[in-house]
Amino acid sequence: MELKTLEEIDIQLAPTSKINEVDFDNLTFGTTFTDHMLVCDFADGEWKKPVIQPYAPMTIDPSAKVFHYGQAIFEGMKAYKDANDAVWLFRPDQNYERFNKSAVRMAMPEVPEEVFLGGLKRLLEIEKDWVKKGLGNSLYIRPFMIATGPGVIAAPAKFYRFMIILSPAKAYYSGEVKVLIAEHYSRAANGGIGAAKAAGNYAAQFYPTQLANEQGFQQVIWTDDATHTKLEEAGTMNVFIRINDTLYTAPTSERILDGVTRKSVIELAKRENIAVEERSVLVTELVEAAKNDSLKEIFGAGTAAVINPIAGFSYKGDYFELPKLADSIAVEIKTKLTNIQNKLAEDTFGWTVKI
Amino acid sequence: MELKTLEEIDIQLAPTSKINEVDFDNLTFGTTFTDHMLVCDFADGEWKKPVIQPYAPMTIDPSAKVFHYGQAIFEGMKAYKDANDAVWLFRPDQNYERFNKSAVRMAMPEVPEEVFLGGLKRLLEIEKDWVKKGLGNSLYIRPFMIATGPGVIAAPAKFYRFMIILSPAKAYYSGEVKVLIAEHYSRAANGGIGAAKAAGNYAAQFYPTQLANEQGFQQVIWTDDATHTKLEEAGTMNVFIRINDTLYTAPTSERILDGVTRKSVIELAKRENIAVEERSVLVTELVEAAKNDSLKEIFGAGTAAVINPIAGFSYKGDYFELPKLADSIAVEIKTKLTNIQNKLAEDTFGWTVKI
Repeated sequence: MELKTLEEIDIQLAPTSKINEVDFDNLTFGTTFTDHMLVCDFADGEWKKPVIQPYAPMTIDPSAKVFHYGQAIFEGMKAYKDANDAVWLFRPDQNYERFNKSAVRMAMPEVPEEVFLGGLKRLLEIEKDWVKKGLGNSLYIRPFMIATGPGVIAAPAKFYRFMIILSPAKAYYSGEVKVLIAEHYSRAANGGIGAAKAAGNYAAQFYPTQLANEQGFQQVIWTDDATHTKLEEAGTMNVFIRINDTLYTAPTSERILDGVTRKSVIELAKRENIAVEERSVLVTELVEAAKNDSLKEIFGAGTAAVINPIAGFSYKGDYFELPKLADSIAVEIKTKLTNIQNKLAEDTFGWTVKI
Repeated sequence: MELKTLEEIDIQLAPTSKINEVDFDNLTFGTTFTDHMLVCDFADGEWKKPVIQPYAPMTIDPSAKVFHYGQAIFEGMKAYKDANDAVWLFRPDQNYERFNKSAVRMAMPEVPEEVFLGGLKRLLEIEKDWVKKGLGNSLYIRPFMIATGPGVIAAPAKFYRFMIILSPAKAYYSGEVKVLIAEHYSRAANGGIGAAKAAGNYAAQFYPTQLANEQGFQQVIWTDDATHTKLEEAGTMNVFIRINDTLYTAPTSERILDGVTRKSVIELAKRENIAVEERSVLVTELVEAAKNDSLKEIFGAGTAAVINPIAGFSYKGDYFELPKLADSIAVEIKTKLTNIQNKLAEDTFGWTVKI
């Protein structure tokens, strides 16, 4: 695909850049922002002219519906720089489509493609120096929309703000990740908003994740809320389970996010003749496979970490350590995927899009 | 109970009041705010000195976690003025306790009683002219907390803001309310955050409610997400069902809010020797009762509307009109409850608290 340039835009450049104050070798994920942000307001039933302006705090009414009723959605994407200093996006059409699906589910207005993708192109052209070359470097992109309309009555707002902010990132390494299989707490309801990248889905996981942290587990793998028997996702990552030489991942549903990394892993695995099945894996199956040594790997797939191998899991008090493999599929897929993203390998899928 | 006065507070009064610009006979619920608000920030692991200041927009970072991960909770309360111009609250201890339960579930810091209730007392002393006398008049109180800490990484914030804003209200009359019984969409998951007054619970209901609106129904009565067979709550109201002369309401759970109006209705009904049972009512029971005329009333119970009678319900395409009764329990309880709240009847329960 090709990104169209958004022409109808106001650009207010920052008088000076913060870029020389940033230590690009020591970045904490999601805490440093670039010089500019994109802002586009929705009012009177329409999207107004987008503005690129210096990154700064904004003013918002204390009764804004985002504070009281949680109308807020986001996406996570990354930009990469190739050896010739060109900037690339990875499957931005997928994020754009999912963003508008989330918008519909949260009763928010859909954002036009020229604002989301065209605006992002303009913003990245301005911020291109913030995208660093080399495997592991990227510029994390956070498009989001919030309900700015005022009033403490539980109904959709009439005013919204779409924004894009950018944060330079190093390869995301979270250390050894041990996970807890959820027995009581849940991430999403049937007929709920689990498939939307809605803000409220994330805060809901913080407390049960804290309880897991206190027991020495970094993340939780959620199970279906009705029976807690089926493995679902890890909240910020979809989950893949390798039993013998087949990869299994839960099918997308109302409860499970249709992850861009997830679908890319599936397509890459198929190309490499690795068997992949999209079906629910039962907790009992996982435990059984761990006991009879057919369980080879578990890994998470998401934009921030790309692929995050799991060292072991705990269920009902029993801890199961995963083997350390020489022929890890997680490592193989991560290498192939990040090479495509960073333009170090040929992109036979047509996933990468030049700015 | 008695409210302690909060002494450690900064008070910055507005130079002029907006009160004379407000038409108190024509108020749209939740849209007019008083002259002042209470603001209290949490930083460095502690709550700072609260401030009462003029109501105004505030500045907040675009990466604040409330926008991205939905860490936001609130309460709804009302203040009433008696014939002698004294201002009263209704069971404020219940809202305070529930607020901190919501805070724990959303991994947010608990707010001290002196800030929440003591701060509210100071704010209401300043805004007492905004509380109008007479049945139906009240000052709606919205305490809330948002995660102001910056950073686009899905983890609890380190900085929070607790606020109280006030909005004058007339008796809430929403017209005739017809409801749709949910068959597909859901409000809450087992092991989720349905029992917390978390912002994200509300936006999740907007889209299915819009779909119901388009079919001519004002509200949705949610059912359990796993089977859609059990009646739960209406999202901003708990639901009571009268079959013959017994009132039924769903038991509180992780999926159902422990409503202050709900528990007051139960206690009032018991005092009046009306049979009340806290148990799940099946949708099939409701339909059967409607068909054999044992279904007498359905009503919602919540702070904004107090008691909201339901005119009829629809399930799987069949609409069931409720009878118009001369001896409505909804009307009886609403009268008794609002008389207590407005200090027009003796408060034998000790529910009302003087400011």
